[in-house]
Amino acid sequence: HLHAVRALDRSGQERLLKYDRLIVATGARALSPQISGLELQGVFPVRTMEDSFRIHDYLEKNSVSSAVVIGSGYIGLEMTDALVHRGLSVTLVGSSEAVLPTVDSVLGKLIEQELIEKNVKVFSGVTATSIEKKGSSNLSVNGDRNLSANGDVVIVGGGVSPDSLLASTSGLETGPTGAIRVNQRMETSVAGVYAAGDCAETWHRVLREFTYLPLDTTSHKQGRIAGENAVGGDREFAGSVGTQVVKVFDLAIARTGLRDSEAVHAGFASKTVGSTQWDHKRYYPGARELNFRVTGDQRSRRLLGAQLLGHWQASVAKRIDVFAAALFHGMLVEDLSDLDLSYTPPLGSPWDAVQLSAQAWSRAVARRR
Amino acid sequence: HLHAVRALDRSGQERLLKYDRLIVATGARALSPQISGLELQGVFPVRTMEDSFRIHDYLEKNSVSSAVVIGSGYIGLEMTDALVHRGLSVTLVGSSEAVLPTVDSVLGKLIEQELIEKNVKVFSGVTATSIEKKGSSNLSVNGDRNLSANGDVVIVGGGVSPDSLLASTSGLETGPTGAIRVNQRMETSVAGVYAAGDCAETWHRVLREFTYLPLDTTSHKQGRIAGENAVGGDREFAGSVGTQVVKVFDLAIARTGLRDSEAVHAGFASKTVGSTQWDHKRYYPGARELNFRVTGDQRSRRLLGAQLLGHWQASVAKRIDVFAAALFHGMLVEDLSDLDLSYTPPLGSPWDAVQLSAQAWSRAVARRR
Repeated sequence: HLHAVRALDRSGQERLLKYDRLIVATGARALSPQISGLELQGVFPVRTMEDSFRIHDYLEKNSVSSAVVIGSGYIGLEMTDALVHRGLSVTLVGSSEAVLPTVDSVLGKLIEQELIEKNVKVFSGVTATSIEKKGSSNLSVNGDRNLSANGDVVIVGGGVSPDSLLASTSGLETGPTGAIRVNQRMETSVAGVYAAGDCAETWHRVLREFTYLPLDTTSHKQGRIAGENAVGGDREFAGSVGTQVVKVFDLAIARTGLRDSEAVHAGFASKTVGSTQWDHKRYYPGARELNFRVTGDQRSRRLLGAQLLGHWQASVAKRIDVFAAALFHGMLVEDLSDLDLSYTPPLGSPWDAVQLSAQAWSRAVARRR
Repeated sequence: HLHAVRALDRSGQERLLKYDRLIVATGARALSPQISGLELQGVFPVRTMEDSFRIHDYLEKNSVSSAVVIGSGYIGLEMTDALVHRGLSVTLVGSSEAVLPTVDSVLGKLIEQELIEKNVKVFSGVTATSIEKKGSSNLSVNGDRNLSANGDVVIVGGGVSPDSLLASTSGLETGPTGAIRVNQRMETSVAGVYAAGDCAETWHRVLREFTYLPLDTTSHKQGRIAGENAVGGDREFAGSVGTQVVKVFDLAIARTGLRDSEAVHAGFASKTVGSTQWDHKRYYPGARELNFRVTGDQRSRRLLGAQLLGHWQASVAKRIDVFAAALFHGMLVEDLSDLDLSYTPPLGSPWDAVQLSAQAWSRAVARRR
């Protein structure tokens, strides 16, 4: 059974590419925000490597001392960090209640403190609506709540949507988010055609349903499974638990699993308990405070998720990985204390901070008898 | 049913302490090595807090510029680190092939390089047999292979044995190592009497048998379970997987589960595969190399253990915890790639170093069909 894909080569010539098995890995596209003036010189979207090279090039060749970053998610925060590192004075504008809306706003507020300490001007809960030229090289970003932020460049971060145009014009089923429908073998609705990565849906191991969660880690896993199955293998994607981390100046902020709002929506009797724990024994120099938020189901007492913020050298990323491994195996919050985690005074405590934060949840959430 | 323990109070008076439930937590004692001269001034054992205060006091009050440390396990290495930190010139003498015999000697050799860089004189494979006074304040440690090491103080680290004297004189069963026999509820052979910590045996989750593995983390877990059950609860100790970590100067060295020798002894078709991986994306500044040794069973392809050495700031301890969580759940080596671990370029890679080291094992160990 032989199929083919119509494609244009670099010279614009149409080619017919024959296949037995096809893998669609078209990725995602940047969502264009509803802002006027995006076409002005000095305004840059940022989604691809090429986008970042264009920004780099512009900063090298022009006299740029200030920037406005629109969007306070992962990309906006990383761009802010990088631009401050280059010596620019940066204003960050985001429409969510606090920066990094993928974690609870109580953590977002802590990130804002860090940004302010690094001399970033932060406007949260503010929607940018227009960019205007102001004088010879300056740009002005305007929006609600009387926003008027000036910069020599404007960087526009923001969300993505699956690039499933090829798929939908070829008759592959797509889901409510526009991502290509797949099963756990990464097969699409058409036999012999697989999809993986930011263009495809993702099996969520905690929600037990397909979602759209475009992350590098997931893409790597899905690509490997699609490839293996396309050449005759038989492996299923075990599912994402939504693990993510970002570094912003001296902080790392990580999460895995569900937050309260997501868990309640999915029907869980969700409860989130925050606590602060030391990353290692306090008597040993250099102990740092970690901010945990543990989410569990009050009925089953199952772990549903965790969020963690702390100094980037305090193993924030790898501590969230312990939660991620526990979530993968459907552990109860209480049972995290059964894990045999490593301890030495400079690097931990006999109950690791992860376990202490789980114990804080257990104490706060009374058993129902 | 009322029982009692005979005890001496501080004044030497005998007291009868009545109980319904008893928990024995007598800990461990330092093993006395077969070395003459241990009674000389300036020679110190190190096991308890009091031992370390005595050493500290002696160093403060005497003119001490050099030390010999006997024993190159955890305690000997930590003492070496601390004494160099105080400005002493240190000679380390250990009888094992390389320092830290609880990990493979290929890693021990890397620790020796670190020690030598920090100006520590290292004698491995050498057994100290006598300590002699040499001049007014100097001590000389002698042993096989013509060992003659001089220092103003001599620190003697070394193993421990369970302090189960009370238990054995009271009729509690002890095992082959002298530790008190318990079940997973931490009950001894006598009803109503529990034991926990360094005096008791430890259920090993990978070996599926009781062992003697005196570690802080295990003691905390066992104490909690003994306490819970003693007051009417019903919880089982889920078992140790032998997770351990130590920091030596700039290195952290961690292990969990079994090494080849232990695994073969337990009947596994064990194979260990070493690999080096970057702790985070190499294009992002500050990437550090991690040395992994992954042990798995060639028949079942189950993960049996892992060892890891790297810079202490490269999340060595928390990376071994990911292996520990995987071991806890009996995962296959291959399935570690299914774990949804966190990624951001400054802190990891889309496949974390843990997963890359597991993939190295899978590539090296051919599937048996």
